[in-house]
Amino acid sequence: MARATAHPDHSCISSEDVHGVEVYGVDGSHIGEVDHLIIDKISGRVAYAVVSFGGFMGLGHSHYPVPWNALRYDNSLAGFRTDITEQQLKDAPEFSDDNAWQDRDWETRTHQYYRTHPYWDVRTGGL
Amino acid sequence: MARATAHPDHSCISSEDVHGVEVYGVDGSHIGEVDHLIIDKISGRVAYAVVSFGGFMGLGHSHYPVPWNALRYDNSLAGFRTDITEQQLKDAPEFSDDNAWQDRDWETRTHQYYRTHPYWDVRTGGL
Repeated sequence: MARATAHPDHSCISSEDVHGVEVYGVDGSHIGEVDHLIIDKISGRVAYAVVSFGGFMGLGHSHYPVPWNALRYDNSLAGFRTDITEQQLKDAPEFSDDNAWQDRDWETRTHQYYRTHPYWDVRTGGL
Repeated sequence: MARATAHPDHSCISSEDVHGVEVYGVDGSHIGEVDHLIIDKISGRVAYAVVSFGGFMGLGHSHYPVPWNALRYDNSLAGFRTDITEQQLKDAPEFSDDNAWQDRDWETRTHQYYRTHPYWDVRTGGL
């Protein structure tokens, strides 16, 4: 059996281990952690990370679906960085905890709100 | 709260619900199910589905990491289809259950073997 070689730019993780990956703000402060991911089964792209923002007080929900493209994985932190602020979360389009991500209208408004590229607009020949 | 609208081409699933999604062979027979996914945290792409092939007998492992691009999601089946055969699994590059997907050499050989496009060769401006 070959010994595994970890590549610096190689950051695969099991979907079972996603729970608890840390999320940091622009200033490097810890603001929450990933609860789970929402995955588009057709394209195999992660659409949202559902993040528990324990570091922000007074939010209306305990978990927020954040467009994947609003997070950047940082190997040196072993976690994600995001520019999203507490105020942005408070003003974000209303959502249902269970199924907002099955409502394309909500998805469109949310991606526009966070100025992120929609995961369903696939500009690639990769598939 | 808006009512969710399910789109026919819209197949998001929670990473917590991935366990147990069915896998069917070319002839439509049930050959296994997804145990979990391996996700590239940098790109947000699913790299592998780790599949339990209960429908195939005499395999050396209970779970096999299958390149994502060797699976096609079929909404009408609510599951994946794959062309992979029992013989292909038996002859596939040796792997370690825990960390084969951290070994880029194994990954390259495996994608070549299944003739699938490597997930790390991103030919897109999406990010």
